[in-house]
Amino acid sequence: MKVIIMGCGRVGSTLATSLDQAGHKVTIIDSNADSFQRLDSTFKGEKVQGSGIDEETLKVAGIETADAFAAVTNGDNRNIMASQIAKEIFHVKKVVCRIYDPIREATYRESGLETICPTLVGALMIFDALSGKK
Amino acid sequence: MKVIIMGCGRVGSTLATSLDQAGHKVTIIDSNADSFQRLDSTFKGEKVQGSGIDEETLKVAGIETADAFAAVTNGDNRNIMASQIAKEIFHVKKVVCRIYDPIREATYRESGLETICPTLVGALMIFDALSGKK
Repeated sequence: MKVIIMGCGRVGSTLATSLDQAGHKVTIIDSNADSFQRLDSTFKGEKVQGSGIDEETLKVAGIETADAFAAVTNGDNRNIMASQIAKEIFHVKKVVCRIYDPIREATYRESGLETICPTLVGALMIFDALSGKK
Repeated sequence: MKVIIMGCGRVGSTLATSLDQAGHKVTIIDSNADSFQRLDSTFKGEKVQGSGIDEETLKVAGIETADAFAAVTNGDNRNIMASQIAKEIFHVKKVVCRIYDPIREATYRESGLETICPTLVGALMIFDALSGKK
């Protein structure tokens, strides 16, 4: 599977390394080249410096032939915009978008975007741990 | 159950509201009083302005009789320190600490702290979603 990941923060770099180790062809995009230092030294994928909401950058990253796209920068709006571009303009089959804000997450999930909200997941995990369910 | 939550960000406020609605006695601590605006309007718990790594603030929040403590500020070090104070000095039975950095998370988990790492959980969820396991 050819996967493009936008955002090389902690989650993006962990995800990129895992997918790379699982044998997928990974390209990671970040506007700050220093972020690529977070990648594992074994990472064999491509690194593209630029903005994931810029169509040219996405083309350089190979979006036109990508099977999957994940938007995991720290900015909800950037993640939403990039996911919509990947899905609507480039017709990437599998698009996953991280949205911190539970309200925006619900809105965009209902509109058909596949979303992950770490805020709700984190709160639920801690709720379960405190309640002794973990 | 009497629960103290340190940090009224998105996760802290969501957690506080959920625990309050589940009938628990919740006290939430934040150094910035504006953060309490994130709480649901129905929230019936206590709000304490101050630092969760300050023992006096923790006493004001009722740590000496608390059953559980969750550290969910945006600072890993603050969360680790506050959790250790709650556990070692005040002998709170259930202490849960959020740590973003997977390396520190592993270290403190191995040393006996109950930790939650949203970075790893988030990466795993997106990995599963991209791999079609979701």
